[in-house]
Amino acid sequence: MLGSRIAIVGVGQVGAAAAYAIILGSIATELLLVDDNVSLRDGQVCDLSDVAYSCNSRTRVRAASHHEAGQCDIIVITAGSRHTIGQTNLEYAYRNISIVKTIVDAMTPFKSDAVLLVVSNPVDLLTSLALQLSKLPPSQVLGSGTYLDSMRIRGMLADKIGVAAKSIDLFVLGVQGESQVTAWSAATIGGVPINESLSKEDVINRSDLSNECKHRSQSIVRAKGATPFGIGSVVSSICCAIIQDKGTVHPISHFQPTLGCCFSLPVVLGKKGVTRKVQMPLSFEEDAQITDSATALKAMIDQVNNSN
Amino acid sequence: MLGSRIAIVGVGQVGAAAAYAIILGSIATELLLVDDNVSLRDGQVCDLSDVAYSCNSRTRVRAASHHEAGQCDIIVITAGSRHTIGQTNLEYAYRNISIVKTIVDAMTPFKSDAVLLVVSNPVDLLTSLALQLSKLPPSQVLGSGTYLDSMRIRGMLADKIGVAAKSIDLFVLGVQGESQVTAWSAATIGGVPINESLSKEDVINRSDLSNECKHRSQSIVRAKGATPFGIGSVVSSICCAIIQDKGTVHPISHFQPTLGCCFSLPVVLGKKGVTRKVQMPLSFEEDAQITDSATALKAMIDQVNNSN
Amino acid sequence: MLGSRIAIVGVGQVGAAAAYAIILGSIATELLLVDDNVSLRDGQVCDLSDVAYSCNSRTRVRAASHHEAGQCDIIVITAGSRHTIGQTNLEYAYRNISIVKTIVDAMTPFKSDAVLLVVSNPVDLLTSLALQLSKLPPSQVLGSGTYLDSMRIRGMLADKIGVAAKSIDLFVLGVQGESQVTAWSAATIGGVPINESLSKEDVINRSDLSNECKHRSQSIVRAKGATPFGIGSVVSSICCAIIQDKGTVHPISHFQPTLGCCFSLPVVLGKKGVTRKVQMPLSFEEDAQITDSATALKAMIDQVNNSN
Amino acid sequence: MLGSRIAIVGVGQVGAAAAYAIILGSIATELLLVDDNVSLRDGQVCDLSDVAYSCNSRTRVRAASHHEAGQCDIIVITAGSRHTIGQTNLEYAYRNISIVKTIVDAMTPFKSDAVLLVVSNPVDLLTSLALQLSKLPPSQVLGSGTYLDSMRIRGMLADKIGVAAKSIDLFVLGVQGESQVTAWSAATIGGVPINESLSKEDVINRSDLSNECKHRSQSIVRAKGATPFGIGSVVSSICCAIIQDKGTVHPISHFQPTLGCCFSLPVVLGKKGVTRKVQMPLSFEEDAQITDSATALKAMIDQVNNSN
Repeated sequence: MLGSRIAIVGVGQVGAAAAYAIILGSIATELLLVDDNVSLRDGQVCDLSDVAYSCNSRTRVRAASHHEAGQCDIIVITAGSRHTIGQTNLEYAYRNISIVKTIVDAMTPFKSDAVLLVVSNPVDLLTSLALQLSKLPPSQVLGSGTYLDSMRIRGMLADKIGVAAKSIDLFVLGVQGESQVTAWSAATIGGVPINESLSKEDVINRSDLSNECKHRSQSIVRAKGATPFGIGSVVSSICCAIIQDKGTVHPISHFQPTLGCCFSLPVVLGKKGVTRKVQMPLSFEEDAQITDSATALKAMIDQVNNSN
Repeated sequence: MLGSRIAIVGVGQVGAAAAYAIILGSIATELLLVDDNVSLRDGQVCDLSDVAYSCNSRTRVRAASHHEAGQCDIIVITAGSRHTIGQTNLEYAYRNISIVKTIVDAMTPFKSDAVLLVVSNPVDLLTSLALQLSKLPPSQVLGSGTYLDSMRIRGMLADKIGVAAKSIDLFVLGVQGESQVTAWSAATIGGVPINESLSKEDVINRSDLSNECKHRSQSIVRAKGATPFGIGSVVSSICCAIIQDKGTVHPISHFQPTLGCCFSLPVVLGKKGVTRKVQMPLSFEEDAQITDSATALKAMIDQVNNSN
Repeated sequence: MLGSRIAIVGVGQVGAAAAYAIILGSIATELLLVDDNVSLRDGQVCDLSDVAYSCNSRTRVRAASHHEAGQCDIIVITAGSRHTIGQTNLEYAYRNISIVKTIVDAMTPFKSDAVLLVVSNPVDLLTSLALQLSKLPPSQVLGSGTYLDSMRIRGMLADKIGVAAKSIDLFVLGVQGESQVTAWSAATIGGVPINESLSKEDVINRSDLSNECKHRSQSIVRAKGATPFGIGSVVSSICCAIIQDKGTVHPISHFQPTLGCCFSLPVVLGKKGVTRKVQMPLSFEEDAQITDSATALKAMIDQVNNSN
Repeated sequence: MLGSRIAIVGVGQVGAAAAYAIILGSIATELLLVDDNVSLRDGQVCDLSDVAYSCNSRTRVRAASHHEAGQCDIIVITAGSRHTIGQTNLEYAYRNISIVKTIVDAMTPFKSDAVLLVVSNPVDLLTSLALQLSKLPPSQVLGSGTYLDSMRIRGMLADKIGVAAKSIDLFVLGVQGESQVTAWSAATIGGVPINESLSKEDVINRSDLSNECKHRSQSIVRAKGATPFGIGSVVSSICCAIIQDKGTVHPISHFQPTLGCCFSLPVVLGKKGVTRKVQMPLSFEEDAQITDSATALKAMIDQVNNSN
């Protein structure tokens, strides 16, 4: 009766952490692992099968080809090179552009209602390119974008004020990274605008919190070389919202027609991907910042397209 | 290590439905059932123990005295007579006032950090009296109030617009029943004010929805004689939020010092009961309606107190 | 992607308790309620929708016709008259035979891979008849049989010896009711035969335990008029094992070709119903008792068939 | 009300994978990470806090000292050096003995009802030493032992025969590693001895399966350098059984008075650790193998003790 399939393409640390969470949560009935490094892939299949066995998960894991991956309900792209020392951001981006192109080509044509979720960095650029290449409808091509940043800042705020993160709506939006924007102007707690719901005693330094949130991944990378777990659990949460057709509102990178590229704004997630866009009322300043960074992203995409 | 105890006082249809949900969800480690009708109580213990056995619940069920109930972490009062034909609302209220008084007296003194949850009707009146009688701090005496009405209207709205109820913050507030108020002015979807998040196509007749929500319990009673399941699952959810110290925001009946009685406004729920009040910005009209009905409730409470 | 549907035919106390557990556990995506008493049915739909809203269940509830029910993945038959005073067992049985015949006729033809689960009493007789009438393959027609009795006696034993019921394999088998058999000879704890796993201190009076288990439903009926919760949660567990294609071993009433009728023996449950029979090594006495009662059941079925 | 605390000492790959599963499953309310490598520890705290935020876990993560760890309900020791090239098994063992000694000393005295769970290898040797050093009662000092091997072989068998692993009782026992024993003689499916429950068609090559199970970890290490996920999820499952006082039967390394060392036999797990031993009826050959390897382990322990 049920029978949902997720493929993870690229099973390094991030892909494996996503797989681990998907199995522990029994999110899909089948999980396909894809990687050019066959030995690593098969090692992950064995180690992760042990997880399925240990926790009596309903998810079964197996190795698969790119072609099989393209026929799944959700395809998660975590493949990508690591930032190596001496490498510029641009070199890093071009390297991952090339990887994602190869992967998407190898999977085309996709199952017509497949949802493609790009996690590799720079996430908004790669999501934009994956949309072009995959020929899937825009509502079915997503990027993890600022989802983790948004959950992180909600959690940090929740810890400070003693309210569950679940009851906080605060979104980090725009192009993920240095230019991402925390939409404080639209923040609510239990549906109440944050300015009215927080009392005098709740002194929150908003820009400090935004900055700590923005730079946290870098400090984790400095400490342990990678940030697999946070993003791994985010991938599992997004897949769960899609497979269970939840209809919940999340910040997700997706195509914005007016600016011609993908970045994060709030959407309703369901089994067809983005089922509805949520128009968030932003301050003039927040809006301008998002537009600026999206314009820069669009320029880079055009440059990439012209260089081919 | 963990060891949380819930008592349910009154195990008719509502109490039993609450117990059933608590066991299925393994919400507490021990569930104590209390009722003057010993045969009914013991039948419920047996039937509900079968549930615990069938689903391998971590919750164990047993019969208990009022005194034991008063030493639990949460005490749920569902006892109360049914509305019988020919009986006025006032007669019905006085009958239940007498029942709740007897019960609270039999449980006093309470465990000092116990949370008392009143479900019997009229819920705000009985919560107000239970607060007076129990000598517990106001933050620990709650009434189910408009919790069910709020979840119901969110669900009805969610079905209409294709967004998860989880992503909707819409509160029914005030004195539960005919004069309850749906706080449309403060409604948000994914944190976005409803007027901005809903498009032209989402035609919602707000007063129709509010009315359908308000009168639904009566139509269920007409059809099947009682409304055990909806309220039963609400009791389980409230107990879960308290025991797991969730810190989530919910509408709950609790004491309002300025008006001198208990009715529903949003609060943060945790293991100590109300851990924080959430000040909701209401329209002038909504605010006035709530004040009016609370004033009427206060007058009735004074009358009850004077008649003793 | 997923989309599983359960129908419950007959929404009195047992059907409603089953529905409540299915919704709380989000077991199916759609739950259809069917009853000739339209007012009761619609009242249950409303009350149970409130549950779905309150706990953010993934299960949606609606009223449906018998025809629609026949197209579901699982159809649960809980319809049946109550035992009324002065009524003989035979009169009661004939009344329910007539009810089940009418229902099965109204649902025929069934979706070809539907699983039919009979809960109405006398359960083995009615399961046998439903198999004849439905024209479904024997592996797809099940009766709740001694599932509840088995879980109950495991739970009672677990409480006595301080081991989780999950780690106990003890089966009540045969024709459910007075002649059911507790298969003590094959009982294991953690896979270890009970005689070896229990020490001298664990004094268990086996026949007392078997008798208490057998007569418990009657004592619950005497106390509260019905036994909705235990059997309701069992229905939810069986549906869960089927929909999630669990492959777990349970005692379930199903067709036994050698004796020509349905009664409970252990089987592996999956999405096609019985996916495999488990041959349990019983003592000579246990085996003889089961055969005797099955022979009596077969005689009654022949009589019912001839009387038409 | 509830408030359970787990400490993980050593937050390399295994410790981090265990922490990740504990957070995703909300197994404890607080998770303390301890490591001499402060930068790694703090990186793990940040990355794993992101997990807690992303999935709204009830588990909060923080860095802690060895002393704080000793006051937790469960202390998991995953610390240990990796097997490096050119290093003999003995050198490796002595290195880890020294690490575990230092850790246990730094945590002593323990909370009197703490449960100590050793995961580092060689697991039975280190569990035996941790028992000596910790001064905790034998029932509170456990090793992960053959838990993973047992779940793995059940899962592999389940996949082959189409029955849920949950319904299979098959134990890998003895000293974990080359000399571990698969107790085929006592294997049951749904409580039925495997020889009777499997039909002719179910051709299972038992020694092949045992060997594949035994050498799987090595092949994973060859492929990806470590086996974090399988053992990580096992740690989470064991902690869950203890904290929830489940009373389920599992193979766990614990002290065997007759042989004077710790190795795996089935026990009932609860909040006090081993609450009951389960005497498994083994074949003469299985029993002899276990005794032989335990005798060898005891000799090595004596040697270690004498060398101090």
